[in-house]
Amino acid sequence: MELPRLAFTMGDAAGIGPELIVGVCRDQELYQYARPVVIGHLGVIKRAVSRFGKQQTVVEVKSPEDMDPTYERILCIHCGHDDVLEVPPATVDKRCGSLAFSCLKKATELVQAGSVDAIVTAPLNKQSLNLAGFPFPGHTEALASLLGYKEASMMLYLPPRENHTHDLGLGVVHVTLHMALSEVIQSIAQEKIVSRIGEIDVILRKLMFLSTSDTRSVAVQSLQKPRIGVAALNPHAGEGGVFGDEEERIIFPAVREASHSGIQVVGPLPADSLMSRANSGEFDGVVAMYHDQGHVALKLLGFHESVNITLGLPIVRTSPTYGTAFDIAWRGTARVDGMMNAAKVASVLARSQE
Amino acid sequence: MELPRLAFTMGDAAGIGPELIVGVCRDQELYQYARPVVIGHLGVIKRAVSRFGKQQTVVEVKSPEDMDPTYERILCIHCGHDDVLEVPPATVDKRCGSLAFSCLKKATELVQAGSVDAIVTAPLNKQSLNLAGFPFPGHTEALASLLGYKEASMMLYLPPRENHTHDLGLGVVHVTLHMALSEVIQSIAQEKIVSRIGEIDVILRKLMFLSTSDTRSVAVQSLQKPRIGVAALNPHAGEGGVFGDEEERIIFPAVREASHSGIQVVGPLPADSLMSRANSGEFDGVVAMYHDQGHVALKLLGFHESVNITLGLPIVRTSPTYGTAFDIAWRGTARVDGMMNAAKVASVLARSQE
Repeated sequence: MELPRLAFTMGDAAGIGPELIVGVCRDQELYQYARPVVIGHLGVIKRAVSRFGKQQTVVEVKSPEDMDPTYERILCIHCGHDDVLEVPPATVDKRCGSLAFSCLKKATELVQAGSVDAIVTAPLNKQSLNLAGFPFPGHTEALASLLGYKEASMMLYLPPRENHTHDLGLGVVHVTLHMALSEVIQSIAQEKIVSRIGEIDVILRKLMFLSTSDTRSVAVQSLQKPRIGVAALNPHAGEGGVFGDEEERIIFPAVREASHSGIQVVGPLPADSLMSRANSGEFDGVVAMYHDQGHVALKLLGFHESVNITLGLPIVRTSPTYGTAFDIAWRGTARVDGMMNAAKVASVLARSQE
Repeated sequence: MELPRLAFTMGDAAGIGPELIVGVCRDQELYQYARPVVIGHLGVIKRAVSRFGKQQTVVEVKSPEDMDPTYERILCIHCGHDDVLEVPPATVDKRCGSLAFSCLKKATELVQAGSVDAIVTAPLNKQSLNLAGFPFPGHTEALASLLGYKEASMMLYLPPRENHTHDLGLGVVHVTLHMALSEVIQSIAQEKIVSRIGEIDVILRKLMFLSTSDTRSVAVQSLQKPRIGVAALNPHAGEGGVFGDEEERIIFPAVREASHSGIQVVGPLPADSLMSRANSGEFDGVVAMYHDQGHVALKLLGFHESVNITLGLPIVRTSPTYGTAFDIAWRGTARVDGMMNAAKVASVLARSQE
C-alpha cells in the first residue's frame, strides 16, 4: 500500500506555522507513514528550514505527484507573493492572512483532485485572515466555504499515550461551542445531539486503525464499537429534575435515538464524573454540551498533544489545537507534538477513506 | 503546643463513615498532629473496629478532655440509640439519619464549648437524614442551621501532592453550585463574587501553615499572598464581548474591587486555561462561576484526595468529598485518603485559629 500524501499548509507566516512544519519534517518517523508536501511560500519555508531544519533542502514542485519527499528533501508547492517576506515575526498583517488563505485554497484543490489524501493545517491568525478580506473565524469555517458547505464541526482528539489506560485515545465533540453561556440552553436540541453522536461514532471507528501497528492493537481491536458518553447540561445531570429538565426533555431522548440506531452510547451523565471516567478508559468519545465542559478537561489532560479533526466535510483535515503563538514565534521553541499527532491522525484517516 | 482535638462524626452508620473513621484512627501518623475523638454510636464503632481495626480498643468517654487517645485506644463519645445496630449496611433508614444528625449536633456543642478544636465529618446520607425529619441537603447546611447561620459555603481543596508543582495545593470555591445551568446566569452577582474571593483568600492564608513542616515549606513561605484566579462565565472569557458581557459587566468589577482591598487576584480568565494554569502551579485558588467548571477539573485532578472545607461559619469543619458509597459500604475497601486529608487540614486550620 502506498503511503498517504499529506498537504501541510503553512498557516500564518508570522506565527509558529513554518517552524511546526519544519519540526515535523525533520522527524524521520514521519516518512514511515506519510508522504508530506508543504503548501506555502517557498522563501518563508526556506527561511524556516535554514533556521530550524537539519540541513534539509527545500525542492519546489508543481504537483505532489512530481516527486516523493525524503527526510533530506522537503517538497514545497509555492503560493503567494514575496511581499510576505517583509513581514516581521509575530505581526498581524493582511499579507500573511492572504497567503494563509491561498495555501488553504490550494490544498483544498489538491485534495479534491485526489493529488493529496488529507490536509494538515498549521495555525493561522484570525485577525490577519479577516484583514485580508476573508471573514472566517478559523480553518474549519474557511474549509466549509471553500468546499461549498454551509457548516462543519470538529472533534478534539487526544491520541493514546504511552502508559495510559486509554487505548483508543479520547475524542470530544461539542453540541454548542463559541457562544455565550446564556445562549447555550436554548441551543441544545435533540437533533443536534443525535448528529454529534453519529459524527463522533463514525470518526472514532476510523481511528480504531490508529493503533493497529503497536502494542495497543489488541485492546483496540477487542472494542466492537466506540464507547460514547453524553454529558448532561446541568450539575448532577439535573438530580432527577431538581436542577433543570433538559436532561429528561432533550438529552435522554437524543441518546435513546442514537442508541436505537446501533451506536454504543450512554447518557446524559454528570459532566464531572463522565470526564473522569473517560480519562480512566471507560469511554472513547464524549459529547459535551458546551465549550468549557469539554475544554476544561482537555486542557488538563494534554491540550498540546491534542488534534483538531474536521467533521462533516468530504475530506480529511486535521490540525494541532494551538494558535499562532506570536509570543514565541520564530524562536524554534514551539512544541511540535500536536502537529506531529495531527499528521499521524490524518494519515490514519486517509487510509480509512480507501 | 498541644495538639488540636478533632471530633470525628460518624456520619451514616450504613455507609462508609465508620470504616473511614477506623481507617484514619489506625494510621499512626494521625497522632502526630491531632487528638481525635469519635462522636458516634459506641456499638457501631466497636463493630467497625473489630472488622477493620488493628486490635485497637474503643473507650467510651463523656468528654474529650477525660483522656488522650492513642493509636491503641480509640475514644468515643456515645450518641443515639441501639436500634441503629439492626440496620443492615447500605440501607436508607431514618434511624441512621437521626443518629448522623445527633452526632453532628453533639460535635457542634463540643466545638462551641471549646472541648474540641475542629469537626471532621464522615459522609451522611441525605435521604436518611431527610426521612429522620432533618430537611438539609448536607452537612454544610445542617451545620449552618445548628449554629444559627442563614447560610455557609465551602471550598474544595486538593492538598499539595508529592512531586507536584503545586506548593499550597489547589482550592476551588463556587459562586453558584446546585442549580440548573439556566439559573446560573442571573445568579452571578458582583457582591457574591467579591465574597467568594474574600473567603478563599482567608482560608488559603490559613492553609499556608499546612506545609511548614515539610520540604515544601520554603516555596509556600515565599508566597506573600495566595494567588487567586477568577473564572469567566463564557468561553474565551466572552472574547471581548462577542460571547456575552457578564465578564465586563459583573466579574471584572468584582475582581477589581477585591484587588483594591489588597487581595492578589486576577480575572476573569477563560475557565479552561485558568484550570490548566492553576494545575501547573500558577494559582493557589480558583473562583468558579458554576458547579461543572470547578468539578470537571477537580475530579480529574484527584477528587478522592480532596477535602471539603466549610466557609463562613465560626468553627472549623472539614470532610472528604465523597458520599456514603453504599455500593461498597462495610467491606473495608473504601479509600481513606480523603478522610485523612480532611483530618490534616482540620488540624492545620484549628492551629491557625489560635
